[in-house]
Amino acid sequence: MAGRTERRRVTRVTVDPGGVTERADLLASEEPLGIRIDGQAVSLTMRTPGDDIDLTAGFLVSEGIVVSAADIAAIKICDGQQCSHDHDSDDTVGNVADVVLRPGLAVQPGLRRSFLTSSACGVCGKAAIEDLRVPGQFELFDDPAVVTARVLAGLPDTLRQAQRVFDRTGGLHAAGLFSAAGELLVVREDVGRHNAVDKVIGWALQAGLLPLTGRILLVSGRASFELVQKAVLAGIPVLAAVSAPSSLAAQLAADAGLTLVGFLRGGSMNVYAGAERVRALR
Amino acid sequence: MAGRTERRRVTRVTVDPGGVTERADLLASEEPLGIRIDGQAVSLTMRTPGDDIDLTAGFLVSEGIVVSAADIAAIKICDGQQCSHDHDSDDTVGNVADVVLRPGLAVQPGLRRSFLTSSACGVCGKAAIEDLRVPGQFELFDDPAVVTARVLAGLPDTLRQAQRVFDRTGGLHAAGLFSAAGELLVVREDVGRHNAVDKVIGWALQAGLLPLTGRILLVSGRASFELVQKAVLAGIPVLAAVSAPSSLAAQLAADAGLTLVGFLRGGSMNVYAGAERVRALR
Repeated sequence: MAGRTERRRVTRVTVDPGGVTERADLLASEEPLGIRIDGQAVSLTMRTPGDDIDLTAGFLVSEGIVVSAADIAAIKICDGQQCSHDHDSDDTVGNVADVVLRPGLAVQPGLRRSFLTSSACGVCGKAAIEDLRVPGQFELFDDPAVVTARVLAGLPDTLRQAQRVFDRTGGLHAAGLFSAAGELLVVREDVGRHNAVDKVIGWALQAGLLPLTGRILLVSGRASFELVQKAVLAGIPVLAAVSAPSSLAAQLAADAGLTLVGFLRGGSMNVYAGAERVRALR
Repeated sequence: MAGRTERRRVTRVTVDPGGVTERADLLASEEPLGIRIDGQAVSLTMRTPGDDIDLTAGFLVSEGIVVSAADIAAIKICDGQQCSHDHDSDDTVGNVADVVLRPGLAVQPGLRRSFLTSSACGVCGKAAIEDLRVPGQFELFDDPAVVTARVLAGLPDTLRQAQRVFDRTGGLHAAGLFSAAGELLVVREDVGRHNAVDKVIGWALQAGLLPLTGRILLVSGRASFELVQKAVLAGIPVLAAVSAPSSLAAQLAADAGLTLVGFLRGGSMNVYAGAERVRALR
């Protein structure tokens, strides 16, 4: 059974002065997680073990399959022989997540990821944004959240302090959910940025917090189209990234009513969409 | 038709002293690219437009479908009406890549990505590494490449200097291919790290350079299982990353005979596998 980190022997080499030392190093774990819905395999993602039920629940939100905890009858993590569905445990007992949806809720035959792969992408291009979008249940334009620039500027430090694994391995992305006042609600880590976000959203789903009105999602890296979409589907009005957003991330944010903040570092930031939610001068 | 960057209006906010300015900002473009092989849609990836033929060729290598330029009869980039297959042009005319394989070479019904998605992942866990691996045609253990720590330490600066877009947007990953002496052969950029690597490998395939014996691949970020696998499939003996590798990346590298270097910055580095290829003290 894998943990979040793995110890490996590493050869440390320096150039000036030249030197070689052998030592043990802690690496972020990466393993596959297969997700099955009602017995049908729908996804395989490379992830850092831990918080796998959160990850699975968040995946279901990000694919537009569920919008509340009641949509999920059960999530069990299995390893072939044994299953666990202990929400309180960080221990992972396997690399397969078995999902049972509530009666009456079926997976659309056009599960987005499969749709993308099988689509001929005839309309790829500008029109593709609409095509790629998973229709959301929550409306962001109405979210009255207002955050101050000072609160935003303080979030990256809070996230870093809360990270359990990053400092030791340097190999994990982090995502944190905050109140508009800057209070940290949850932090999750993963080798994959999208997984860290799914883990946060899945946690929130199970806590009955969706839509995440008035909250801020902070990611440690860049902001892609996919991350903006995840925020929109979870009803989060503000997405902040320590690094750059892509063009499509900015456009989808503007289209969906999401406030998108990038380059959040050193007491400054760029706001790419929804700037009316950012109170700059106090 | 999209370029590699897109100009957008951005609100720049500073905290101490508080200030707000409006200005234009350059963002890295992100758009979908659909890949069709012999008329069948097999993949849709979010990528930065440009070098799309390289990207497509590299995808075919990374999926274990082709191993030489002769395996590909044609790659055309299309937008519905119009197609282009001008290898010398950076211009992208659409978001669909149409691949025709050489006669006799068919896509396996078990295209890896689909296989992963449809697999029940019954053996996920330690055994999954073998399961996830795309069988390679090239043998790395025999590659006699030796690189000095000094050459390795100089690569990140060379890569940064060669990046065309990164400095302007801060939003792109880069991958560079180098000789063992540290000479830069090609650099490619993308919002997706795996795409940047596919673009480099696709360039090399078309230049008739596979297997990339004696070469070094440098990536600007972290090293995942997937990137190690791409290097192995292209016959590259040394993969270096500016940041951390994952546990599975290190394990696959050791299993496949790849030299894996991480945390390559500031005149030092960690060697996670294949340290015999790194000459430390000169």
